[in-house]
Amino acid sequence: MQKEIPVANANSKKRVLVTGGAGFIGSHFCDRALALGNEVVAFDDLSTGKELFLSAALKNPLFRLVRGDIRNLEELQKTCSEFQPDLIAHFAANADVRHGLERPRRDLDYNTIGTWNVVEAGRLSGCKNLIFSSTGSVYGEPEIFPTPEECPFPVQTSLYAASKLAGEAILSAYALGYQMNVTVFRFVSILGPRYTHGHIFDFVKALRRNPKKLRILGNGLQLKSYLHVDDLMDGLWMVIQNGMQAYQVLNIGHDDALIVNRSVGYILNELKLEPEREYTGGERGWVGDSPRIQLATAKLKAKGWAAQRTLEQAVRETVRYLQSEPGLFEENS
Amino acid sequence: MQKEIPVANANSKKRVLVTGGAGFIGSHFCDRALALGNEVVAFDDLSTGKELFLSAALKNPLFRLVRGDIRNLEELQKTCSEFQPDLIAHFAANADVRHGLERPRRDLDYNTIGTWNVVEAGRLSGCKNLIFSSTGSVYGEPEIFPTPEECPFPVQTSLYAASKLAGEAILSAYALGYQMNVTVFRFVSILGPRYTHGHIFDFVKALRRNPKKLRILGNGLQLKSYLHVDDLMDGLWMVIQNGMQAYQVLNIGHDDALIVNRSVGYILNELKLEPEREYTGGERGWVGDSPRIQLATAKLKAKGWAAQRTLEQAVRETVRYLQSEPGLFEENS
Repeated sequence: MQKEIPVANANSKKRVLVTGGAGFIGSHFCDRALALGNEVVAFDDLSTGKELFLSAALKNPLFRLVRGDIRNLEELQKTCSEFQPDLIAHFAANADVRHGLERPRRDLDYNTIGTWNVVEAGRLSGCKNLIFSSTGSVYGEPEIFPTPEECPFPVQTSLYAASKLAGEAILSAYALGYQMNVTVFRFVSILGPRYTHGHIFDFVKALRRNPKKLRILGNGLQLKSYLHVDDLMDGLWMVIQNGMQAYQVLNIGHDDALIVNRSVGYILNELKLEPEREYTGGERGWVGDSPRIQLATAKLKAKGWAAQRTLEQAVRETVRYLQSEPGLFEENS
Repeated sequence: MQKEIPVANANSKKRVLVTGGAGFIGSHFCDRALALGNEVVAFDDLSTGKELFLSAALKNPLFRLVRGDIRNLEELQKTCSEFQPDLIAHFAANADVRHGLERPRRDLDYNTIGTWNVVEAGRLSGCKNLIFSSTGSVYGEPEIFPTPEECPFPVQTSLYAASKLAGEAILSAYALGYQMNVTVFRFVSILGPRYTHGHIFDFVKALRRNPKKLRILGNGLQLKSYLHVDDLMDGLWMVIQNGMQAYQVLNIGHDDALIVNRSVGYILNELKLEPEREYTGGERGWVGDSPRIQLATAKLKAKGWAAQRTLEQAVRETVRYLQSEPGLFEENS
């Protein structure tokens, strides 16, 4: 359809704007961008992001944190027009998949309208390169495993996934219509240091309150796919440095997957606990929970990427991180 | 996934809210709903819709026109809470596919946020049934023709299609999350009386200004799929009366398709004109124009529907209608 637009000076230093730059994944992305010598602005409203995660970055003269909200186009425009980014890494999002039905406008505001605001501000400032954190949840309940990017047209089962799919669609129309390079990554659940959101967090938090009993949503047999955040960074940066195209969609996830009971086993082993397990039952943890996510990653592997860390390592390292930062539980309780 | 929720009193009279009810398709839907004895409220901001199209409906005591904007949740909520619809037929949209890149926020506002507003207002009023006019454009540039609903996960090529896909995704998450029956219809271009938007309109309008020369976007070989609005109504009402399900997606279009040059031939023949034809060239009329749309309709046909009118009939009847309503050109010029 469209010819590849080379990233300006692909291997030279770039100005990189990271939305959600104070969050779990965004802050790792900032650190990696700085380690590669780039100039970085993190744009974050600090609603779930934390300055704690940027303690190293904040000491770097090439780094700046701008407090702003992606729901506000003007704030984004101001930042883009001052900073003139070469690349936007758009991670800011509402990542609470489970409670979408209680606040049905939230996913639309942050993940759909927010994504439109980000790409529009980028376009108006002349930025030609953008990467986006989408989700394997956009496959709904697929019938093909592992699920390739071109699987049959899916049906959305959560407001979260619907809002991310909408973000993808907007970016794709922008890429074609305004000649931008956009890479959409469909993530599995990401684990590792600074992880503060999701069921591993919830399990550890629950066990801190009551180490004798653990309530598990569903039947414990839901198959969950994870990836260590360092493996994620390897993949994102490989594509940024070597493979940006007009528009592409790439799954990123581990070949392995864990049933919830197995993850719970690693968590309990790390914490040296043996609580009674209580299951709420059913194939799904909640309405819209996918009983199985496993992504085919042949497209990304063909570019030279492979995950280096096992899922057991990823879960255990996450639990150790959470134990080392007990303050995270107080803030979020 | 979800069990079918029967439409309350499927064959009895219903309260039907029609967004975009003064538009081309919406007004036909109102007429058919009234002919079947239902109580109807048309919700329309009259920005492109016309009271002219409702001249028969407005004489019916079972009909009411509410002037309102789907971008405004409160207006929709007020109407839903007063009227308590059993069924919402959501047609209100920005239907200008071609100029999306000039006003990139418009599709988001009307087709995505507007659709969220409509389904949210419906949910809050307890409405359990909704049909939605989506588009075959969500298939982007498919590789399978005719294109089935479950074709490979497409890439969006226009802001219009992206915004309609986003609407579909929101509705699907609502259907599952809040136990609503939602049927998404993916339309081809609809023709017939009250048609006031699209390339047949543009051709007739251009020929009224200059009958000696006709400028045709692209190379004239783009294959376009159409359907007569009466065939569309037959399909929508068959599903409403017999086949509403928790969530389903149904293509609706004619098995036949016309290249642009063929449609132009019928138009010129109706108008008895022989202008010089000037082609802008290329496979696409504009960025995001799909060189070929042809939808597989086996799913809808399996429910008993079939188009009764040929595309030649549809094009000719449309041209005759436009000739009978010259005022339409003045209003839109």
